[in-house]
Amino acid sequence: MFLRRVGRTLPVSKRLFSTTISASTTSNMDSAIDELNKEMEFVFGEAPPTSLAGSGSNQSVAQDSPTLPSEMVGIESSLTHIGSKGEAQMVDVSPKEMSKRVAIASCKVILGRKVFDLVSANQMTKGDVLSVAKIAGIVGAKQTSNLIPLCHNICLSHVRVDLTLNPSDFSVKIEGEAASTGKTGVEMEAMTAVSVAGLTVYDMCKAASKDIQITDVRLEQKMGGKSGTWSRDK
Amino acid sequence: MFLRRVGRTLPVSKRLFSTTISASTTSNMDSAIDELNKEMEFVFGEAPPTSLAGSGSNQSVAQDSPTLPSEMVGIESSLTHIGSKGEAQMVDVSPKEMSKRVAIASCKVILGRKVFDLVSANQMTKGDVLSVAKIAGIVGAKQTSNLIPLCHNICLSHVRVDLTLNPSDFSVKIEGEAASTGKTGVEMEAMTAVSVAGLTVYDMCKAASKDIQITDVRLEQKMGGKSGTWSRDK
Amino acid sequence: MFLRRVGRTLPVSKRLFSTTISASTTSNMDSAIDELNKEMEFVFGEAPPTSLAGSGSNQSVAQDSPTLPSEMVGIESSLTHIGSKGEAQMVDVSPKEMSKRVAIASCKVILGRKVFDLVSANQMTKGDVLSVAKIAGIVGAKQTSNLIPLCHNICLSHVRVDLTLNPSDFSVKIEGEAASTGKTGVEMEAMTAVSVAGLTVYDMCKAASKDIQITDVRLEQKMGGKSGTWSRDK
Amino acid sequence: MFLRRVGRTLPVSKRLFSTTISASTTSNMDSAIDELNKEMEFVFGEAPPTSLAGSGSNQSVAQDSPTLPSEMVGIESSLTHIGSKGEAQMVDVSPKEMSKRVAIASCKVILGRKVFDLVSANQMTKGDVLSVAKIAGIVGAKQTSNLIPLCHNICLSHVRVDLTLNPSDFSVKIEGEAASTGKTGVEMEAMTAVSVAGLTVYDMCKAASKDIQITDVRLEQKMGGKSGTWSRDK
Amino acid sequence: MFLRRVGRTLPVSKRLFSTTISASTTSNMDSAIDELNKEMEFVFGEAPPTSLAGSGSNQSVAQDSPTLPSEMVGIESSLTHIGSKGEAQMVDVSPKEMSKRVAIASCKVILGRKVFDLVSANQMTKGDVLSVAKIAGIVGAKQTSNLIPLCHNICLSHVRVDLTLNPSDFSVKIEGEAASTGKTGVEMEAMTAVSVAGLTVYDMCKAASKDIQITDVRLEQKMGGKSGTWSRDK
Amino acid sequence: MFLRRVGRTLPVSKRLFSTTISASTTSNMDSAIDELNKEMEFVFGEAPPTSLAGSGSNQSVAQDSPTLPSEMVGIESSLTHIGSKGEAQMVDVSPKEMSKRVAIASCKVILGRKVFDLVSANQMTKGDVLSVAKIAGIVGAKQTSNLIPLCHNICLSHVRVDLTLNPSDFSVKIEGEAASTGKTGVEMEAMTAVSVAGLTVYDMCKAASKDIQITDVRLEQKMGGKSGTWSRDK
Repeated sequence: MFLRRVGRTLPVSKRLFSTTISASTTSNMDSAIDELNKEMEFVFGEAPPTSLAGSGSNQSVAQDSPTLPSEMVGIESSLTHIGSKGEAQMVDVSPKEMSKRVAIASCKVILGRKVFDLVSANQMTKGDVLSVAKIAGIVGAKQTSNLIPLCHNICLSHVRVDLTLNPSDFSVKIEGEAASTGKTGVEMEAMTAVSVAGLTVYDMCKAASKDIQITDVRLEQKMGGKSGTWSRDK
Repeated sequence: MFLRRVGRTLPVSKRLFSTTISASTTSNMDSAIDELNKEMEFVFGEAPPTSLAGSGSNQSVAQDSPTLPSEMVGIESSLTHIGSKGEAQMVDVSPKEMSKRVAIASCKVILGRKVFDLVSANQMTKGDVLSVAKIAGIVGAKQTSNLIPLCHNICLSHVRVDLTLNPSDFSVKIEGEAASTGKTGVEMEAMTAVSVAGLTVYDMCKAASKDIQITDVRLEQKMGGKSGTWSRDK
Repeated sequence: MFLRRVGRTLPVSKRLFSTTISASTTSNMDSAIDELNKEMEFVFGEAPPTSLAGSGSNQSVAQDSPTLPSEMVGIESSLTHIGSKGEAQMVDVSPKEMSKRVAIASCKVILGRKVFDLVSANQMTKGDVLSVAKIAGIVGAKQTSNLIPLCHNICLSHVRVDLTLNPSDFSVKIEGEAASTGKTGVEMEAMTAVSVAGLTVYDMCKAASKDIQITDVRLEQKMGGKSGTWSRDK
Repeated sequence: MFLRRVGRTLPVSKRLFSTTISASTTSNMDSAIDELNKEMEFVFGEAPPTSLAGSGSNQSVAQDSPTLPSEMVGIESSLTHIGSKGEAQMVDVSPKEMSKRVAIASCKVILGRKVFDLVSANQMTKGDVLSVAKIAGIVGAKQTSNLIPLCHNICLSHVRVDLTLNPSDFSVKIEGEAASTGKTGVEMEAMTAVSVAGLTVYDMCKAASKDIQITDVRLEQKMGGKSGTWSRDK
Repeated sequence: MFLRRVGRTLPVSKRLFSTTISASTTSNMDSAIDELNKEMEFVFGEAPPTSLAGSGSNQSVAQDSPTLPSEMVGIESSLTHIGSKGEAQMVDVSPKEMSKRVAIASCKVILGRKVFDLVSANQMTKGDVLSVAKIAGIVGAKQTSNLIPLCHNICLSHVRVDLTLNPSDFSVKIEGEAASTGKTGVEMEAMTAVSVAGLTVYDMCKAASKDIQITDVRLEQKMGGKSGTWSRDK
Repeated sequence: MFLRRVGRTLPVSKRLFSTTISASTTSNMDSAIDELNKEMEFVFGEAPPTSLAGSGSNQSVAQDSPTLPSEMVGIESSLTHIGSKGEAQMVDVSPKEMSKRVAIASCKVILGRKVFDLVSANQMTKGDVLSVAKIAGIVGAKQTSNLIPLCHNICLSHVRVDLTLNPSDFSVKIEGEAASTGKTGVEMEAMTAVSVAGLTVYDMCKAASKDIQITDVRLEQKMGGKSGTWSRDK
């Protein structure tokens, strides 16, 4: 694996690019771009925002475009955090409309039977593992924009984190919900809430086992924005 | 005052305990405790720390002990963040010895082929997805104690986050390492580093797909402390 | 799944409740609930908000309600940060209307004569104790949602902190004001501002005396929201 | 340059001083200074630290001293956060010796009977008011140096926050303990822990009453440092 | 109480003022005030906001005004962060109208030829100096209100940071843009973005040279607010 | 300028690399490397630290070295935040020895005469511009590791920020000092302290003029570490 990566990062790899990478990617790239652009219509309902000020970056788009390979254009339009030169960028949400946004994410913490039983017994007391993790998740959601570099700092109207013990696989199921009225979605706030809650469960149980894992951190539901409601098929 | 409180909080869970819970858990609890105590010897190499000050909590231990059922003692000694009354607590690491501590954690971000190809192509540019996530993970590790309520705030001597594209399952493999010289381990710093890096990859790719998942957030290696080195069997 | 959890969490407190607590509290609880509900009308002017998403918690309300004893309903409707299962929750302010909100809080730092004289003399210089505490209070107000777990993060349009020396009882009187236009009140921002200012006065004077106390941290005035203006009787 | 500055900042307060302030304060100032200096011996066990670098401030001390009125010297030596020119300063703890430091602070939240009963009933559930406030206090202690401008950022080896219901005056009694091994005390961490815990109780109960007050935020015990142990007389 | 305080704080600076300072400043102060007031009309388009609440500060304005010398009034109206008593204050933006705000700031990091060549070569790799600094600047902009005491915490709709190598003077040119829709400008967010990006370049290059300097941190452009667009003459 | 940058960043530029860039850099690169390595001996007094754990990165050094062009090696050894693959990295300071570290940085805020006079007059009051900026600089120093991605989080034993008015060029001269006992230097803490203090002066004066600039942010002195004392020639 590592050699592949070196091959990809060192200057020499540039020449390799056209030979190794594009071989495995260009073939399916065009169709990918097509699907993605359709998806973009659905997700964003509007053209990718352009810079506010008459500063360099507009010209740059003009100047780069001719020399931009088709897949770079594809990246630009489908990875909205990637600018016209392939650079990371914060999405400019100024042109977006205000709307009520809700996102629900979830994850699982696989405890194993031994730890599961201990957490179950502890459930009976105040300040138990799940209650502490719940608070940590709510607080964590408010820290999202300090953790995710390109994430907008927003005011949340609601954060909900629920943890439930699942004896069928000796896990803790965590569901997190974030809500806001604004121009940008709250997926990352919901994703961060469940991640921090999961890490807190791990922290409080790690002394009892090092085999605990946090898995399936994912989006479950999304409401608001021009794209309307999306829900994962169960 | 304290007795009143014990009177209000303890007997309850006790009675409760023996009636509803232990039925479903005590059967396997004793053996669990045995294993756990062995494990504790290995993990901590020392008795669970006790409170520093001559304040209530010492007496409380004294007073509770007689009435503490064996499984509560088990919880207390194996879930080190759970106090003698089943309450959450920060572990007092004052009595621990200073030593060089290193922890390595990892996780996977399952992108799916379409997004994987886009990220691969983006790899060729500066400020690409993986570079931004790498920085986010390093910065995130320094925020650990602000995110995990019972985690100690410590000075890290090193943080390393590496992200590699894995074409075999169209995923990003993230490995994070934290190091410190002190009285407490750095597992949470390594776990937080990879989680924040994973969330950042998700954030930058979420526009292209909502099926991205972060999985297998787990500890890989642990060095230092009396327990010495631990490594996950591959 | 959910039923299992209800089964695990509710009956306990119920049984408990009727046996030990209500003996000492139910007697006056019903009248308390009545007064509180009147108060709630005044304070919130609207029904307690319900969860946004069609996720578990709605059903849970549905399922719990029949089994919820009247005093739990009372707690739920009067302690707005306590959910239908007695769990902590962040209040969902999405349904609330935007309005101009102002809150004024105050506290006192009792210095004692010796320290009071030193602070008075120091008053004459720049960067004096009261000026530093004033800045700390303003900065602290902006940290409120990072400190108070269930507090919403909001954008403040104004923060004012004034400290005055009161020779009559050798104290520093601190008044803090916070303002915002939004869906949630700013009491906590005003309360945090004066608390942080008070702690800063304490920090800068603690070397001269350990008898300094911060007292009477409380709300003085509240404007905006459906409940309109409230002011403490002097 | 430096002389110009002294010329601009000092003479002012001097002249001022001798005319307006000392009239009202000098009378009792000398004895105050005497007591304070004794106290300082006890509290610090060493002379107030001086600046590390060969930069302006050393000269300034040299240059100011002759012109410094006795009470300024008094302020300087007793308000350790006030520099030789009456300016706020962070104390330089470099010359201090490492030692185990512990501080215990406390405060009271006066709820009133109605709210007290509601919190008592809520006590029976997980994620109750007191458990959330306990976590908030622990997390808040780790934020101390971000809140108190002249407070050193330190690594805490332990934080403990306990909340108990006191039916005798319908209050919540909060006790907080902070511990560290280092060159500076942890009083502010303990004071901040109880303040944040108290604010959290207020936040969760404020909907039920606006008459809640946080009182008697104060230091209870102090261990470590050259001054050894101090304990408030009960 | 308040009169005592005015008595203690004002006359001093007054007398002082007329003796030492005004000699060197009053001569040109009146014309300065005139220009500044014109400027204020342009910059703010409205009278400086006054306190929201019927609290002390209003009276204080009433009481001080008669005794306020013209230049203090000048300071108050031109240094909007200085209150009627010469004290620092956060500007109350409540009365301002919402509008789209954009600000562009810039700075330069003078590397010297040796370091410039190293950074240029490094440019070819991922996670290079300029990419890391770009991310740091974006993240830093979101921290502005935590760093600048009297700065409002706002929600940013966009942050852009661009770094370019300038071989003509072996420097890195940094441009930062911040945007928001609200009642207060975003100059500080743009200024902070370029400052943090510049500090990050410094941090990553400091091992190679200690002669690196950050210069010309300044505002370039300003859009929105009643004052409309301003642009620096090049 | 912009075209040069495009030329440098787009894939096509890679092939150009060997022709255009190295032409302008390799010529002087070898001597640069020599000087830099000498410098490194002086600055670090030890070989660049290598990764702690037996994880990929060690091998990677081994594997890359043969294919690393000489200037990349130069970059790696002189830009200590650049890893063996040209990637950003946090320096691992674990192997470094503890020592007392002090750094002094400075900057200038050019106000222009008009604003200078206003700030001078304001100097006479409490909570004046320079006092607020002083506090902001001290607080900012404690935030350094949250702002500079690859900066270690450390415990500071002292922070000092002094601001003086310089009538000769109508500027504010800011000097900042940071001290710590540890394994890593405190240059960034001193640089951040003066930058934040400068930004705060800007914030409080910006209403009076948009021509204010922060300049000459630079290191003045450095003490401790194996390299001993360094001081800028005046």
